[in-house]
Amino acid sequence: MRRALALAALGPAHGPNPRVGCVLLDPGGRTVAEGYHRGAGTPHAEAAALADARSRGVDPRGTTAVVTLEPCAHHGRTGPCADALIDAGVAAVHVAVGDPNPVATGGADRLRAAGIPVTVGLLADEGEELLRAWLHAVRAGRPYVTLKLATSLDGRVAAVDGTSRWITGARARAHAHTVRAQVDAIAVGSGTALTDDPSLTARRTDGGLFDHQPLRVVLGRRPLPDGARLRGPGGELLQLPGDDLDAALRALGDREVRHLLVEGGPTLATALLAADAVDELHAYVAPVLLGAGATAVGDLGVTTIGDAARFATEDVTRLGDDLLLVARRIAPAAGPAAPAGSAGGEIEYENGSVHTAQHGRPRRHTEEEI
Amino acid sequence: MRRALALAALGPAHGPNPRVGCVLLDPGGRTVAEGYHRGAGTPHAEAAALADARSRGVDPRGTTAVVTLEPCAHHGRTGPCADALIDAGVAAVHVAVGDPNPVATGGADRLRAAGIPVTVGLLADEGEELLRAWLHAVRAGRPYVTLKLATSLDGRVAAVDGTSRWITGARARAHAHTVRAQVDAIAVGSGTALTDDPSLTARRTDGGLFDHQPLRVVLGRRPLPDGARLRGPGGELLQLPGDDLDAALRALGDREVRHLLVEGGPTLATALLAADAVDELHAYVAPVLLGAGATAVGDLGVTTIGDAARFATEDVTRLGDDLLLVARRIAPAAGPAAPAGSAGGEIEYENGSVHTAQHGRPRRHTEEEI
Repeated sequence: MRRALALAALGPAHGPNPRVGCVLLDPGGRTVAEGYHRGAGTPHAEAAALADARSRGVDPRGTTAVVTLEPCAHHGRTGPCADALIDAGVAAVHVAVGDPNPVATGGADRLRAAGIPVTVGLLADEGEELLRAWLHAVRAGRPYVTLKLATSLDGRVAAVDGTSRWITGARARAHAHTVRAQVDAIAVGSGTALTDDPSLTARRTDGGLFDHQPLRVVLGRRPLPDGARLRGPGGELLQLPGDDLDAALRALGDREVRHLLVEGGPTLATALLAADAVDELHAYVAPVLLGAGATAVGDLGVTTIGDAARFATEDVTRLGDDLLLVARRIAPAAGPAAPAGSAGGEIEYENGSVHTAQHGRPRRHTEEEI
Repeated sequence: MRRALALAALGPAHGPNPRVGCVLLDPGGRTVAEGYHRGAGTPHAEAAALADARSRGVDPRGTTAVVTLEPCAHHGRTGPCADALIDAGVAAVHVAVGDPNPVATGGADRLRAAGIPVTVGLLADEGEELLRAWLHAVRAGRPYVTLKLATSLDGRVAAVDGTSRWITGARARAHAHTVRAQVDAIAVGSGTALTDDPSLTARRTDGGLFDHQPLRVVLGRRPLPDGARLRGPGGELLQLPGDDLDAALRALGDREVRHLLVEGGPTLATALLAADAVDELHAYVAPVLLGAGATAVGDLGVTTIGDAARFATEDVTRLGDDLLLVARRIAPAAGPAAPAGSAGGEIEYENGSVHTAQHGRPRRHTEEEI
C-alpha cells in the first residue's frame, strides 16, 4: 500500500478526479504491475496497472490488487474499475480509503458479490491525507477552501498608503505560485479584482505559466473592465455573486472544483472565516512590522479570547526571511452549535474522546499569569 | 577553537561577564587542559584552564592557549589573564574575538610585548555569535534589546474585552520562561505592570523558579501598589522613567545589564521600535485569528511599505501549535540617517558591499503583480 500511495502522489493534485495508485501482487507478494491515475480523461489507476501487466506479459489472474481508493463502480469517462478487476480475475483487493463519491461508490460490494474478498482501511490515515481536499469536496459537495494570507508580523497586508509590494519575499511568492498550480480554482473578491488588477495565474519563477492554470473566480457583482488582467492569458474566468458564500461554494462544487484557494482581500477572507468556511490556512508571514495599515482579517465578531478562530498547525516552513504556517480547521465538537464567527474553540483529544476545551477563558488577575 | 567555543557555551548566558572557553594544547596539538568561565566571581577561562593543568599535573610551559575571547589585561574581580598566561610560560595564544571592553582590552598587546605570538580571528564569526549580546552591550554601552511579542496570526495580543489567556500555548510559554532565565533583565511598561500585575519571574514548567532570576525593570513613573507581584519573590525590582528610553537603556548599561528582554506592552514595544532600539525580535505566533482587539505594535510612523521595520530572520521553530520567529535588526547602511521609525529598509550584501535596497517601493499597477 505504501508503494500504491507513492504512485498515487505522482498524479496531479488538481482536477475533478482523486489521485489513486494501484499495485498488483503475485501470490508470493511480489509486485508484478503498477499504475496510477494521471488526471481526468486518462485511465484509472486499476486500468493503468492492468495495462502495465499486459505490457509486461503478466497474467493478472490470481494477483492481489492493492488500491489507495475503493475501485469505482460506475460508467464515467472510463468503465467501472471494479468490473475490470473482476474480468481480470484478481484474487483479492486491498483498499486504503472507501469511495465517498455517491456516483462511484459500491465497488467493494460489487467485488464481494463476485466472490472477491475486499479489505478496506489499510493505511487509511495516509490515504485520507493524500486525498484530503478531494474527500472533503466530495463529501461536502463544495470545495476544500484554503485561505492564503500574506502579512507582516503584526498582521497587516499593506501600509497606510496602500502599498504592499513586497511584504513577503521572492521565495514566499514563488511558493504561493506552486500552490496555485495545484488547486482547481483561485478566488478573490471583486474589490480586490478591481483595485489590484491581479492576473491570478500560476507562474514559474521565470514568469512563464505552469501547464495547469486554475479557474479564476471573482466573487461580487461589480463588473471587471475589458482590459482587466483577469481577462488575459490564464485559467477560465468565472464571476459569482459574493453575497451568498454558501451558494457560491456549492456552485463551484457543482463544477467539480475540489480545491479552492482564496487569495483575498480582507473582506472575502473575513466573510469566509466568520462563516467557518475556511478548511486550511496558508499564512505567509514576513519579519516586518508596519504598526498601521490594512489588516488581513476584519471583524469576526470575536469579543473574547475563548471565541477566537483557532486552527491546528500542520506545518511550519521557513521560506527565506519569511515563514509559511499551514494550519487546518479544527472540526467543531459534537453538541450545541458554535457561536457565529467561531471556529469552535480549541479541541483536545483525551483518551480518544473529543471535547471543547476553554483554555482561552478569561482568568485575569485570578492567578500567577505572566 | 571549536572545543574552546563549546566550553564557553557551558557558561551562563546571563551576567556581566562574557562566556569564554580556553583549551591548552601541547606542542603535538593534543589537549592537555581546558576551562571555561562559570560567571562573575569565578575564575576566568584561562585561569580555569591553568588550574585544570595543575590538577592534572601538567606543566603549562610551552603549551598553546586557544581562547574564545582576547585574554583580559585588567585587575578586576580576578587578576589579568594575560599576565597569568605569561607567568605560566605559554608559547603562543590563539584568540577568536578581540575584547572590545575598554577596561579589559590590551591583553594581546601585553602578550606580544612579553614575546608571545598572538593570532586573533580564528572562528571569529562563531565567537561573535556566541557573545552577540555581550559584545553589543559592551560596544554600545547599553543592553542588547530582545523584544518578545506573543500574538495571534493577525497580530493581536488580546481580544476586544481584553482577554488574552492564552493566545499561545503551553510550549511557547515554557520557551519564553527559558529565555527569561538567560537574560539579565526583563522590562515592561508601567501600564502593563499595573494592568496585568505580572511577576516577571523565570519559572520552570512545574512553577518553580529557575536559579537565575533577571532584574525586573518597570519603565514609567506610575507607582506600583504594595501588593504587586513584582514586589514578590524574583529578581530585584528597578523602576526607571519611561520618557527617555535612551537614558533608561544607558542606566541599565551602567549596571552591566548586557541583555534586556522587553515583554510589553504595546506602548513600550512601539516606542522601542520607533527609536530603532530593538536588536532582536522573538515573535511567538499562534494559529489563531481574532479580527479585532489590541495589536502588538502601535503606530510606528510608517506610512509606506518601503519604510517598514524589517528584520532578518535568524530562526523559525515550531512550538506545539505555535511558532517562534527569531529575527534580528538589520544594521542601517552607512550614509544619511534613516528616517525616524524606520529600521533602515532592507539591506543586501552584494559583492561584499552593503547598500540599502528599496524592494518595498510602491509599484502598484505598473507591472504584472499578483
